[in-house]
Amino acid sequence: MIAIVNIGQLVTLFGAARPRIGAELNDLAIINDASLLIEDGRISAAGPYSGLKPRIPDNATIIDANHRCVTPGIVDAHTHLVFAGNRAAEFEQRIAGATYQQIAAAGGGILRTVALTRAATEDELLTAARRHRDWMLRSGTTTLEAKSGYGLDRDTELKMLRVIRRLNKEGPMRIVPTLLAAHTVPPEYKDRRADYVRFVAEELIPEVAKLGVAQYCDAFCDDHAFTVDETRTVLTAARGHGLKLRIHAEQFRSGTGADLAAELGAATADHLETVTEETLQHLRAAGTQPVLLPGSVFALSRTQYPPARKMIEAGLAIVLATDFNPGSSPVPSMPFMLSLACLQMRLSPAEALTAATINAAHSLGLGGQIGSLETGKQADFVIHEFADYRELAYFIAAPMRPRVFIAGREVSV
Amino acid sequence: MIAIVNIGQLVTLFGAARPRIGAELNDLAIINDASLLIEDGRISAAGPYSGLKPRIPDNATIIDANHRCVTPGIVDAHTHLVFAGNRAAEFEQRIAGATYQQIAAAGGGILRTVALTRAATEDELLTAARRHRDWMLRSGTTTLEAKSGYGLDRDTELKMLRVIRRLNKEGPMRIVPTLLAAHTVPPEYKDRRADYVRFVAEELIPEVAKLGVAQYCDAFCDDHAFTVDETRTVLTAARGHGLKLRIHAEQFRSGTGADLAAELGAATADHLETVTEETLQHLRAAGTQPVLLPGSVFALSRTQYPPARKMIEAGLAIVLATDFNPGSSPVPSMPFMLSLACLQMRLSPAEALTAATINAAHSLGLGGQIGSLETGKQADFVIHEFADYRELAYFIAAPMRPRVFIAGREVSV
Repeated sequence: MIAIVNIGQLVTLFGAARPRIGAELNDLAIINDASLLIEDGRISAAGPYSGLKPRIPDNATIIDANHRCVTPGIVDAHTHLVFAGNRAAEFEQRIAGATYQQIAAAGGGILRTVALTRAATEDELLTAARRHRDWMLRSGTTTLEAKSGYGLDRDTELKMLRVIRRLNKEGPMRIVPTLLAAHTVPPEYKDRRADYVRFVAEELIPEVAKLGVAQYCDAFCDDHAFTVDETRTVLTAARGHGLKLRIHAEQFRSGTGADLAAELGAATADHLETVTEETLQHLRAAGTQPVLLPGSVFALSRTQYPPARKMIEAGLAIVLATDFNPGSSPVPSMPFMLSLACLQMRLSPAEALTAATINAAHSLGLGGQIGSLETGKQADFVIHEFADYRELAYFIAAPMRPRVFIAGREVSV
Repeated sequence: MIAIVNIGQLVTLFGAARPRIGAELNDLAIINDASLLIEDGRISAAGPYSGLKPRIPDNATIIDANHRCVTPGIVDAHTHLVFAGNRAAEFEQRIAGATYQQIAAAGGGILRTVALTRAATEDELLTAARRHRDWMLRSGTTTLEAKSGYGLDRDTELKMLRVIRRLNKEGPMRIVPTLLAAHTVPPEYKDRRADYVRFVAEELIPEVAKLGVAQYCDAFCDDHAFTVDETRTVLTAARGHGLKLRIHAEQFRSGTGADLAAELGAATADHLETVTEETLQHLRAAGTQPVLLPGSVFALSRTQYPPARKMIEAGLAIVLATDFNPGSSPVPSMPFMLSLACLQMRLSPAEALTAATINAAHSLGLGGQIGSLETGKQADFVIHEFADYRELAYFIAAPMRPRVFIAGREVSV
């Protein structure tokens, strides 16, 4: 047995059979002066130290939390972890005033990353992804979702999914794979987009499903990517082949995909900066979780953040994620997302933490296994530098050194 | 001799006899495939490896930079490093909609930190300050300025300055001490503010100057702190006692201190969110450097950043700093300041880096000793994780692990 003792503040998020909504988002189910017992990588008990003390055998491995705060490991439910190169040059051009269109016309934007990712070997991609993964681990993320989508052809999409599978196998971080072949229309299909949609729906999705290399299928519904009808074609095919659904929706304009997410019963609708209140009701009725991605609003110097408070009022089980990617969100840090969520979307530190743990876990179908510190769950947790969970959002971009544990084992990166 | 070899991109900032202005801010004087030679903690040469190779003796200590980018150590010219406690509870209240006035009325705000700092022992303050210092070191800051100002009485202001002196002595980071007794009016002087100004000008400043525990004197000129006349009284006294001057000016309203900074020949005028173009001309004529503090705009969820581009157009030698403090800027990371400067103030990554190194060094009177990588200067530098300096601003809040060197020795934190 491993016993974590001297936990000043244990954020358990007890009672997590379903994602939290409304006032529940503020209820972290904190236990002070607590202990956490772990056997075979799973939590065997979480509670006040005084009650658990008799259950700790003499030969237990004792880890002293020094009266600090312990939370569940963070779950990042929307990332583009795997890509080659970066877009620092484009970052500089945007600051100098270049528009997205000008950058794209000069060979920049997403298609630049596509070209680099196609040219990279699988091992090169793995090395780059591992670097990004380590940044995330260091800041307390223990599970993440990762998408393909910089291949836009059969071989490169499969290469990306293999990289995700290899990273997942090598551990320690759990990575949930998502096919995002419908990220944008690839250059070679520029004048025959219907053919690309057909290729994704009728060829790639069946193959990916058969290989078992993706659990989710995602699509980018946007004026610069796929129409609602095209997105429906892709995601309906995916559903038919047993993949669960996520959608990039309503980032720049209302009416781009969130209603479709509800119609198809997608697990999540992501972005939603421009979503209407009517659509929020549809999402609620469908049980679709909104995934808030404030990093991309911030990194694009935009000011319209998703209406998080309205989502909470509408009874939605909000999720917070990084959208880590080389273009619109080169931001790997979930603690920074908590800061942004508080400062820009008026979430309380508790609401933000709930959205980044148990609610994120549910959005990935893992609500029964991770996201809270309850008996039977995998022992993914973080011993923070501080004693009060609010400091995670309050100290902004601070290079803290939390102790991160996955399945009961301390991770060293 | 220590030889840093295999430097892919060496950001030298050569030719730094005075701070950079205008187009010079974009000129990083980069050398590719470079080497850096160090003797007795100082740079003995910086240049192309091919030229320096013959000068490296067989017994030199070789450090391989693996083709990465090397920059001067970052200089953070405005911090409130030393304080007790934190204000995470107030952060939560502000998000929930409490105004600054409500928080102050409930015992919060700066006076809460004053009460905690007065109550803390010198060793407790040192331990807290060391934690903050280590965050800064980890992100590449090698020199910083640190202010008193949470004492507002003789004993606590001196206690804070002693903590700064002890931290500076223990090394490795160089810390420049500033007296900020005129931070706000302390509660016991609430109804006799003139007496407090007199105490600072006539008693504390002479004592601090005699003890040699501060190099600069700063004052907060603001509707909630000190008037222009009160600030003039304090800073004129300080100047008379040989202290150099900095001013918190024009954060919330034009006409609060920046013209005074020019009038008194202050080294810097800090904040300047509301500064007018006319005042910028006065600053230029006086040689006063503007210190931009975007962290406090961000952390207060405000939208008015200082007009950095107008300052550059006006020929001012801008500086970028964190304003690290427990209330308005709990942000220790200079790389994050670079990101904010680019995204919110439209500085190029090169301009932001110049403002955070050589220009910051000049603002502290250290332009001849640090801030660029030139022969004779102290060997303070950073070997970054990446090969292109633009990634420092581009990857936002990424927990990178740069190798940090001060006076030629690698720092481990």
